[in-house]
Amino acid sequence: MDEKKETSRVEAFSDGVFAIAITLLILDVTSAFSDASKLQLFDLLRQQWTVLLAFLLSFATIGIMWLNHHRLFTLIVRADHNLLVLNLLLLLAATVVPFPTALLGRYGVDVANNEANFKQATILYNGVFLFVALGYHLLWLYATYKGRLLSPNVNMEAVRRIDRQYLLGPLFYTIAFALAFVNPWISLAVNTLLAIFFLLPGIALSTSQKPE
Amino acid sequence: MDEKKETSRVEAFSDGVFAIAITLLILDVTSAFSDASKLQLFDLLRQQWTVLLAFLLSFATIGIMWLNHHRLFTLIVRADHNLLVLNLLLLLAATVVPFPTALLGRYGVDVANNEANFKQATILYNGVFLFVALGYHLLWLYATYKGRLLSPNVNMEAVRRIDRQYLLGPLFYTIAFALAFVNPWISLAVNTLLAIFFLLPGIALSTSQKPE
Amino acid sequence: MDEKKETSRVEAFSDGVFAIAITLLILDVTSAFSDASKLQLFDLLRQQWTVLLAFLLSFATIGIMWLNHHRLFTLIVRADHNLLVLNLLLLLAATVVPFPTALLGRYGVDVANNEANFKQATILYNGVFLFVALGYHLLWLYATYKGRLLSPNVNMEAVRRIDRQYLLGPLFYTIAFALAFVNPWISLAVNTLLAIFFLLPGIALSTSQKPE
Amino acid sequence: MDEKKETSRVEAFSDGVFAIAITLLILDVTSAFSDASKLQLFDLLRQQWTVLLAFLLSFATIGIMWLNHHRLFTLIVRADHNLLVLNLLLLLAATVVPFPTALLGRYGVDVANNEANFKQATILYNGVFLFVALGYHLLWLYATYKGRLLSPNVNMEAVRRIDRQYLLGPLFYTIAFALAFVNPWISLAVNTLLAIFFLLPGIALSTSQKPE
Repeated sequence: MDEKKETSRVEAFSDGVFAIAITLLILDVTSAFSDASKLQLFDLLRQQWTVLLAFLLSFATIGIMWLNHHRLFTLIVRADHNLLVLNLLLLLAATVVPFPTALLGRYGVDVANNEANFKQATILYNGVFLFVALGYHLLWLYATYKGRLLSPNVNMEAVRRIDRQYLLGPLFYTIAFALAFVNPWISLAVNTLLAIFFLLPGIALSTSQKPE
Repeated sequence: MDEKKETSRVEAFSDGVFAIAITLLILDVTSAFSDASKLQLFDLLRQQWTVLLAFLLSFATIGIMWLNHHRLFTLIVRADHNLLVLNLLLLLAATVVPFPTALLGRYGVDVANNEANFKQATILYNGVFLFVALGYHLLWLYATYKGRLLSPNVNMEAVRRIDRQYLLGPLFYTIAFALAFVNPWISLAVNTLLAIFFLLPGIALSTSQKPE
Repeated sequence: MDEKKETSRVEAFSDGVFAIAITLLILDVTSAFSDASKLQLFDLLRQQWTVLLAFLLSFATIGIMWLNHHRLFTLIVRADHNLLVLNLLLLLAATVVPFPTALLGRYGVDVANNEANFKQATILYNGVFLFVALGYHLLWLYATYKGRLLSPNVNMEAVRRIDRQYLLGPLFYTIAFALAFVNPWISLAVNTLLAIFFLLPGIALSTSQKPE
Repeated sequence: MDEKKETSRVEAFSDGVFAIAITLLILDVTSAFSDASKLQLFDLLRQQWTVLLAFLLSFATIGIMWLNHHRLFTLIVRADHNLLVLNLLLLLAATVVPFPTALLGRYGVDVANNEANFKQATILYNGVFLFVALGYHLLWLYATYKGRLLSPNVNMEAVRRIDRQYLLGPLFYTIAFALAFVNPWISLAVNTLLAIFFLLPGIALSTSQKPE
């Protein structure tokens, strides 16, 4: 039983799913511009700005999901059935992202006519993100319980740092989710700040930067 | 001739196909919501529930296909032309899944007007699943015949356990397929139970959990 | 400079492209059934049989392309700029396949009204296949010229066998291409026979089966 | 901390994104031919030639992006958080390519009626390419600053050669971008020449060809 190989195949499959989900996002941008030949392109880009915002936000979010997955699996070296099923749950969340992204973009363009739909799309969008945050939390709790699936000589400092960060993720996304019921624009602003926060160099808790 | 590398490329290609097939499923969910701006989003989600059910069921099924493939290829270490062709047959089944999934979802929404179409979609859907189960059976029989493509120091206990499980798979899916001719709802309920059954921790026969 | 790693990344990228091209084929099958709710599903499947035939034929062909690629890269161990560019040419052919496949399926359904279009689609379809066969020929000639990119201890018998087979491929596909100008149905029958021929166990010239 | 494995996963994810972006390009070609059954196929191909040109140009460009990525990551052996984020920026550019490609093709067919749109699409198209060129420049500057992420025994000659080439890329693409404001056809001609230039064997600066 070659354990190294096992997690590497989980990573390969997950990489594939993240890569596809992140690349499919552009399809809805293209289709949002398909039946609109009356306007000039640059005016169209301005009119459809929520489509572009939703695209960028979802791209950043799936990108962060991948960064996170990458980081966890530098620490997780074993895979059992439950880990694979929990990982499938995460991938489910990743593949779903293009759906509320498309709705958010579309309903955002139409917000003047139907504000309720835009709000509901924001709730759905943040619901998926909250599901992602909880999914990572669960997978991480399972893998680290009694050091179950970690390398025996794992950097415990790195584990603790992720423990702390994984309390913040679900908290932040619960707030963004709750705000979506109040005001979709504020909720999206929080989403944007969270994406920037997780991509910024200073705050990043990448295990790979501290090899000691 | 680096045999290790050979099966690893079969796995990489298969991972790619599974990853894409599982991610494409969301496209039909998105398109099912494309021309329906009259209703509120949450009402739409309720109206299109068969689209969401078909999505989840197919996601779980392709996920289980990947789990199975992963498990088999921890035991199969050699690849010959016939294995590659049998593997292509399995991948054919995986890539086809989004098609009956889309039909099932769509005809499910329209079931009040056209029950025959919904039944036929369920038959097709279960036919594909049965094809998957038989495909795995065939590939496994071929690979294990006289231990042909297994590692010389393979865990024979793990092989037996898969042998036993692979008698159950085709049997269960034959039942679900037969039930689709009688009542599509019962057939889908059996599909759901089978997906849960194969994902549950207790019943899982993962070879990786018993390294001795 | 880790040469092993270099060809392995060429293979990974190519695997990705083949995996996606082969999986996208189903999208056009799904869309061929999208606006046809008047007929019963099983009648529709019968009516759209050229869509299903084109899907299966293209799936088999991309599958064979992957098998071939896999085989070549068990012998090719070095990569230079020209090989990467020639490989891109092959991948171009692979990504193009879904386009004439969609046309062939659609025009096939409509053949009674517009036979010229069906013939032109068959010509295009076979033109792509001929391009594939010539592409492999070229890549192989380049890689084997003075053993340039082969392993120093390569099995020369395996190289010769591929040499011989690679004279046949372009020949067969030139015939199928020429026949498309005469009669599209005969041309498609030849395509089908070629696919079966390359997938059959007896005729397969897999290098991996004869390790001595 | 297995550093080799870390960059290899960045490469795998990037390979996935490049592979998908390059393969999705054909979808817009197919859809450009979907509602045009009145003309004969060969006449259609002639009429939609800008769709085919945009497809080929974008295929070549994403192919060159991959070649570049491949080349850089034979020299970069370490990954930190910032590199992963800069790499995500590049992948963002790669996934966006199919969008201006679709616009360029479509507006090109319609150029006689709406020249302004075609010009704006060319500006957008070249803007994305310029973004790609600057993205590579940035990633390379970051990785090579004080040899930060390079192998300790890296071939400094290869690093210098890329340094020089990476001054040319942004320069050339700035010119093509500026020309798009003047005349879209000239800009596209420059794009075509650049693609050929980067694919030609003589000019290629592949590090793998000079192993000493």
